[in-house]
Amino acid sequence: MSIVGDYMEDRIKISILMDYYKELLTDKQKDIMELYYNQDLSLSEISELTDTSRQAIHDLIKRCNKLLIDYEYKLKLVEKSNKLRKVKDIIIEKINRLEEQSDSETFKSSLQEIKNTIVENI
Amino acid sequence: MSIVGDYMEDRIKISILMDYYKELLTDKQKDIMELYYNQDLSLSEISELTDTSRQAIHDLIKRCNKLLIDYEYKLKLVEKSNKLRKVKDIIIEKINRLEEQSDSETFKSSLQEIKNTIVENI
Repeated sequence: MSIVGDYMEDRIKISILMDYYKELLTDKQKDIMELYYNQDLSLSEISELTDTSRQAIHDLIKRCNKLLIDYEYKLKLVEKSNKLRKVKDIIIEKINRLEEQSDSETFKSSLQEIKNTIVENI
Repeated sequence: MSIVGDYMEDRIKISILMDYYKELLTDKQKDIMELYYNQDLSLSEISELTDTSRQAIHDLIKRCNKLLIDYEYKLKLVEKSNKLRKVKDIIIEKINRLEEQSDSETFKSSLQEIKNTIVENI
């Protein structure tokens, strides 16, 4: 059970890293990683589809996983994005509270506008 | 005059790219790029300091410039950061206007608090 849990957790982790760093991979690496992690194809299926040995696919995926983890270690884009999302939630929450306290409709609509700018752009 | 302008502009551009992508360079590349772009040492000075030929330093800087430009082309971190800064300014400006329109001190101080959270964390 815990092995399955780790397996899924690792898959999700790699999927997220792909969202941030896939452009740093070569086209071939990107294609195979997407087939494996986003389209859930097996090693054998990818091997057949790309006319590459199963072992070569396995090695490529392993190497790319290391690359992605190393990029996150160096640039911390996922970490920074998670932090930004938390700050955004805190700010929205503060604005919501202010909105509830206000009686003025003009004020409320201005706060709503600020909130929209935050939600749409940050 | 325009050549000097471009030269300075390029130096600033590379300095900014270094802020975002230097961790993707090797230690040696990072050191030499920082000596050249941030500490303003000449090729000859860096050559002497690092016991490397002037030509090798020149080639390394040229190669790193290409790498940095390529990283920005792929990840667009500088572009995204500039966009985020503009959005942040717009939000702060909207909050300032709301603050000016308000008569309630409690309200003003809540807006101030929201502004601080934005300034300190985004």
